[in-house]
Amino acid sequence: MYTPYPTERSRAIGERVEAFVRDVVTQYEQDPRCGSHGPSDELMHEMRALARAQGVLTPHILADGDHLSQLETAAVLKRSGISPLGPVALNTMAPDEGNMYLLGKVASAEQKTLFLDPLVSGQARSAFFMTEPALEGGAGSDPGMLMTSATPQGDGWVINGRKMFITGADGAEVGIVMARTSEANDPKTRATMFLVKLPNPAVRTERVIDTIDSSMPGGHAVVMLDNLYVPNAHVLGQVHEGFHYAQVRLSPARLSHCMRWFGSTARAHEIASRYATHRKAFGKPLIDHEGVGFMLADNLIDLQQAALMIDWCAKIIDEGSLATAESSMTKVAVSEALFRVADRCVQVMGGLGVSGDTIVEQVFREIRAFRIYDGPTEVHKWSLAKKIKRETLLKEQA
Amino acid sequence: MYTPYPTERSRAIGERVEAFVRDVVTQYEQDPRCGSHGPSDELMHEMRALARAQGVLTPHILADGDHLSQLETAAVLKRSGISPLGPVALNTMAPDEGNMYLLGKVASAEQKTLFLDPLVSGQARSAFFMTEPALEGGAGSDPGMLMTSATPQGDGWVINGRKMFITGADGAEVGIVMARTSEANDPKTRATMFLVKLPNPAVRTERVIDTIDSSMPGGHAVVMLDNLYVPNAHVLGQVHEGFHYAQVRLSPARLSHCMRWFGSTARAHEIASRYATHRKAFGKPLIDHEGVGFMLADNLIDLQQAALMIDWCAKIIDEGSLATAESSMTKVAVSEALFRVADRCVQVMGGLGVSGDTIVEQVFREIRAFRIYDGPTEVHKWSLAKKIKRETLLKEQA
Amino acid sequence: MYTPYPTERSRAIGERVEAFVRDVVTQYEQDPRCGSHGPSDELMHEMRALARAQGVLTPHILADGDHLSQLETAAVLKRSGISPLGPVALNTMAPDEGNMYLLGKVASAEQKTLFLDPLVSGQARSAFFMTEPALEGGAGSDPGMLMTSATPQGDGWVINGRKMFITGADGAEVGIVMARTSEANDPKTRATMFLVKLPNPAVRTERVIDTIDSSMPGGHAVVMLDNLYVPNAHVLGQVHEGFHYAQVRLSPARLSHCMRWFGSTARAHEIASRYATHRKAFGKPLIDHEGVGFMLADNLIDLQQAALMIDWCAKIIDEGSLATAESSMTKVAVSEALFRVADRCVQVMGGLGVSGDTIVEQVFREIRAFRIYDGPTEVHKWSLAKKIKRETLLKEQA
Amino acid sequence: MYTPYPTERSRAIGERVEAFVRDVVTQYEQDPRCGSHGPSDELMHEMRALARAQGVLTPHILADGDHLSQLETAAVLKRSGISPLGPVALNTMAPDEGNMYLLGKVASAEQKTLFLDPLVSGQARSAFFMTEPALEGGAGSDPGMLMTSATPQGDGWVINGRKMFITGADGAEVGIVMARTSEANDPKTRATMFLVKLPNPAVRTERVIDTIDSSMPGGHAVVMLDNLYVPNAHVLGQVHEGFHYAQVRLSPARLSHCMRWFGSTARAHEIASRYATHRKAFGKPLIDHEGVGFMLADNLIDLQQAALMIDWCAKIIDEGSLATAESSMTKVAVSEALFRVADRCVQVMGGLGVSGDTIVEQVFREIRAFRIYDGPTEVHKWSLAKKIKRETLLKEQA
Repeated sequence: MYTPYPTERSRAIGERVEAFVRDVVTQYEQDPRCGSHGPSDELMHEMRALARAQGVLTPHILADGDHLSQLETAAVLKRSGISPLGPVALNTMAPDEGNMYLLGKVASAEQKTLFLDPLVSGQARSAFFMTEPALEGGAGSDPGMLMTSATPQGDGWVINGRKMFITGADGAEVGIVMARTSEANDPKTRATMFLVKLPNPAVRTERVIDTIDSSMPGGHAVVMLDNLYVPNAHVLGQVHEGFHYAQVRLSPARLSHCMRWFGSTARAHEIASRYATHRKAFGKPLIDHEGVGFMLADNLIDLQQAALMIDWCAKIIDEGSLATAESSMTKVAVSEALFRVADRCVQVMGGLGVSGDTIVEQVFREIRAFRIYDGPTEVHKWSLAKKIKRETLLKEQA
Repeated sequence: MYTPYPTERSRAIGERVEAFVRDVVTQYEQDPRCGSHGPSDELMHEMRALARAQGVLTPHILADGDHLSQLETAAVLKRSGISPLGPVALNTMAPDEGNMYLLGKVASAEQKTLFLDPLVSGQARSAFFMTEPALEGGAGSDPGMLMTSATPQGDGWVINGRKMFITGADGAEVGIVMARTSEANDPKTRATMFLVKLPNPAVRTERVIDTIDSSMPGGHAVVMLDNLYVPNAHVLGQVHEGFHYAQVRLSPARLSHCMRWFGSTARAHEIASRYATHRKAFGKPLIDHEGVGFMLADNLIDLQQAALMIDWCAKIIDEGSLATAESSMTKVAVSEALFRVADRCVQVMGGLGVSGDTIVEQVFREIRAFRIYDGPTEVHKWSLAKKIKRETLLKEQA
Repeated sequence: MYTPYPTERSRAIGERVEAFVRDVVTQYEQDPRCGSHGPSDELMHEMRALARAQGVLTPHILADGDHLSQLETAAVLKRSGISPLGPVALNTMAPDEGNMYLLGKVASAEQKTLFLDPLVSGQARSAFFMTEPALEGGAGSDPGMLMTSATPQGDGWVINGRKMFITGADGAEVGIVMARTSEANDPKTRATMFLVKLPNPAVRTERVIDTIDSSMPGGHAVVMLDNLYVPNAHVLGQVHEGFHYAQVRLSPARLSHCMRWFGSTARAHEIASRYATHRKAFGKPLIDHEGVGFMLADNLIDLQQAALMIDWCAKIIDEGSLATAESSMTKVAVSEALFRVADRCVQVMGGLGVSGDTIVEQVFREIRAFRIYDGPTEVHKWSLAKKIKRETLLKEQA
Repeated sequence: MYTPYPTERSRAIGERVEAFVRDVVTQYEQDPRCGSHGPSDELMHEMRALARAQGVLTPHILADGDHLSQLETAAVLKRSGISPLGPVALNTMAPDEGNMYLLGKVASAEQKTLFLDPLVSGQARSAFFMTEPALEGGAGSDPGMLMTSATPQGDGWVINGRKMFITGADGAEVGIVMARTSEANDPKTRATMFLVKLPNPAVRTERVIDTIDSSMPGGHAVVMLDNLYVPNAHVLGQVHEGFHYAQVRLSPARLSHCMRWFGSTARAHEIASRYATHRKAFGKPLIDHEGVGFMLADNLIDLQQAALMIDWCAKIIDEGSLATAESSMTKVAVSEALFRVADRCVQVMGGLGVSGDTIVEQVFREIRAFRIYDGPTEVHKWSLAKKIKRETLLKEQA
């Protein structure tokens, strides 16, 4: 959307995805099973059965296990997001999309059979146990503060700690747990990732947090890891390489958020445009009032820029870069732009805009959270400023 | 808050109100009876009993029926808003506060006994039936489009129509209904206000709308008026004078929204300031990061300006003006400023900011709605532009 | 800058252009011949002689008369703008660049020899006589209001009228004059373009306007056309086709503004980044203060988005489209983004930022004007809103 | 303007000031003696002679030497600023207004005769030698970095150093010089203020900086102090108390900037409103286009808030407070608001807005500088964040 399809195969997939989301998924948007902690698993599986039948489930991973390029993924995932329910129905949602990507890159063959296959087939959901309670001093946006620890025991490890804001934990069947395994000076070599089948009595959901967003199945949970045992065979990749793998997952997962929410926000803009074209006030359609028409023009520009940033960053990842700075730039630019767009859509629609009668109100809430999830805007700017300083000094030495 | 008490009596009342809200009302903020359509009537009455015992119920109306000046009201209502539940507990909430003001100005003695007294005592809730469904062509922000009609019948009137976004209708015991009674050329002489005891079988709640805000008991309803009979004795004031009375109610009611939400947002700023003072990231308290500290500094400035605008407009109403333009200016300035403040508070608090664990997330949602309720920002700017043109031409003729 | 070179030939040209601007042109930035109405012709010719010697003059037009694609032009013109003097030195400046483009597309072979060749060789400057005095009711941003008229006389036309804000008129040797030649209902078939050798006694500069910007030789003039005779042979293209040709010139000329100012603003960002890296306050480099570092991070994002928008629009023109809507979107997005960047650069540099000691202050002034030149932001949003309405209705019929 | 006169005497003075500025001073706005380094002294004295004759010179200091309260001063100085030349003509300009205030508070009787009287009578100009070159490590916005030093010698002191951005130095007859006289740990007890008659060969203007603003006579200079001798009798107040006196001068001088620029910006808004009321585009007056009308509505709100902030801070100073935090809040709020207003005025007026044909363009440039002069916005936010932290901790201990 707002940029052409990069390849024919992405067009073929994207068009079917868009048709499915518009024709089928949007019918579920007022379904009472869309709760404040996300759509129920029952609803998810009902929609996935339809997607499977239409051949659009997990559309970014091909039948042979190959993954679309990031640029192609952008074209497909944006369309999967045309409904906030789309990523749930199509299995392109967070954190599963990122988890599948990571497992595809790092997991062993046996691990893939056990942990990845049920995800790709859309039969199970997963969770990524990384962030920790901020007020207790744990890792919020600062990975150096990781407090959950894993201690060797027999042929495996015992993990203890508390994880916060774990998306989808409630109801997940696959878990990836990040824990401290070393006190090395370099914080980047202290952590290891572990794979866990869920439910497991040692992984206890303390509560599902009430949050402003409501699109992700299972919501966001506080989880106690209480002597969780993981055998060595379920260590993901190498011991102490957890931060490295987190980096591999980072930019694509971050970018896929941008893709999906782009789609939802573009749809909100469509809804607001239709409303403004038909609803009249003071003698003419709202859109003919510059006060409204200019907001929609601003939306168009913001959406175009967001689409271009997504594609730009996708290409850089496709060229083999970690794209850490580029994905920070894109995440800030896109989340802030989409928020402006969503806010204008709400405003254009007046009372209807703050009601649940259309998805506009939900999209506004989701994007508000998105400005914080995956690193608040300020953390990204902080690291970008460091980069500017570093490059300014480098250029002077040249 | 942020400006000194204007009088000794307002200080006496305001200090007790603030103490009650902070000590008692905030205890209820996580009460499960705070639903998505507002706190339940049970919860409301439980808090009001405590407020009554403390002598802080309906604090802006004195024992002898006198009303505080608007400037004094500002000092008291801001404090009542320190919790989103405060106005419910203290009977300073919308639409009751505005309805009491209107009835106090226009109702006959008999009408006061019947309709006003149960409101002032905090025993009943009320609703103001004015706005109509936008997509059906009714009166959204444009009063000229009023479609609900009242036809004379016997010693009274029969009213038919559909009302949209009627705050508190569900559960109200007193209703004020605006209906078209004439086809006069001047849209300002076409409407009449009617008083109704509720529940009444001719006043049917079609549904309570799911909205982004959740502080007002009864939520916002779509209501069908189906052959509602009102005797002449329950016409409020004069026939065809409805728009005139709406004007009388307009600025004070609009301003009281500003007052209450000011209090809630100032509290959100307190919460965010405390969080930023104690939570550390990257080696120091968040507030010592300029990226966070500057947001809080901006909050301080925005709140100060909002407080000054409220007092400025209050004084103008106290001087006898309708203050239509001034209340438009104030509503725009205050709602937009409070939204910026609430948004920054959410951002400062990160994941906690988008959770229901503090009131910050709710305040953000409420203020989003406030930018639309009581006339969206754009409608006010539209009328202000007209005023600038008019005055520019006048000055040139002088 | 900020996007890779699209082709090898654009890289070859672009790298030489960048080197010339950085090494040679920037040396002239404090030259006293840079006046408030733009650099003098003497200074221009001095710099052009050096550019000619280096083979970088008129770099976007190849030796055989071919023009780089728009995407390639973007890569080259952005670099020509690294100094505000660069486009003057390299002959990529407005309005000459757009005029050369137009003449290349529409002029006859004889007209090219007479009017285009001296421009391409950098020996002469040109002006585009289109806009008219707003307060007299003439064509500001609204082409339907064109008042200058051309009347047939003998083998030619006699033109009378007043033109406003004619960039470079003072000192130009080639003029393109737009005048009304018909009263047809369709305003798009009323105008004709005429070519004029200057100076001509019938083309009288009334005054050169003092403006906030100061980069364009000749400044912006008010010009009286007083019985200006133009032979039929100097009608550009067909009679009554003036608006059509204006459309051909429109998007590329608009986009080339974006390209050049992008370069200047990117340089301002470099200057501010260096300053912030070295200047200390309160114990550390300015850039380590988040209040400053975040501004530079915002610059980086804004510049990246501007670069992407420019390339996006360039590609669409290269595909054969007039790109009217796309160039409107790009002009708004880029001019507003560059203004934010320039404003932040000024702010980062404090007192130095508002002084003429670096180009930052000039860039800020230039970009302020750019938000108005070539159609103020609001006019573009107006036409974008119309487009959104049109497309919304079309989609519904589909 | 935008708030009522606080007293009858301020009304009497304010009305005469406003009439003089509108009727007389505005006539000089296109005078060629208004140069890029401010109006010439000749022009200044010509206007002051007229002001003296009308009894409006130095209107904020009464005949008996008494000073209007700050709240009254606000009412008068805002009106003096209705033209950017007004403060020059009326002797309410910076830095003289602040210097007179300081001398009135601190100077001895003999010093007043020698240094203050020629200022109050409008016969001489003064300069305040405090800020130092940033890139050399001197005191920009950070007073702890003061490098200019004064060494005792005989019955006086010898001062050496370099001062940057000294407003009005070129042509001043009175100087107040801040220099380091001690190496005490507490940076607040290290500096002393000295009074100097100018010109003095030891005070050498190195250059007058070209800056974006152009309203202040003498411009802003870089000044070398080269063995400047000052007798003890010309030490202002006590030795080592310089920072303390700087604090006394700080808030009133800062606030008077807000007052004057408020007046100029309010006038720019008047000009833009008139233009928008009369200039037509696309078939109706500009102001009837919401895109323009809404900008003017935003102006009205911003100006009202700025006026209220100024009065609020003035009252706090009148109550005896240093008002350091309050004047920081006000300076940030007012300078940023006025910039938005000036920017919108430019935009509303299109090409005319960026031309020198009205004062709008100059006001825009002046306010841009004002966002930096007297402490850039970021420095104020930095100190406000400290204050929020301090008060948050204090409240918790209570």
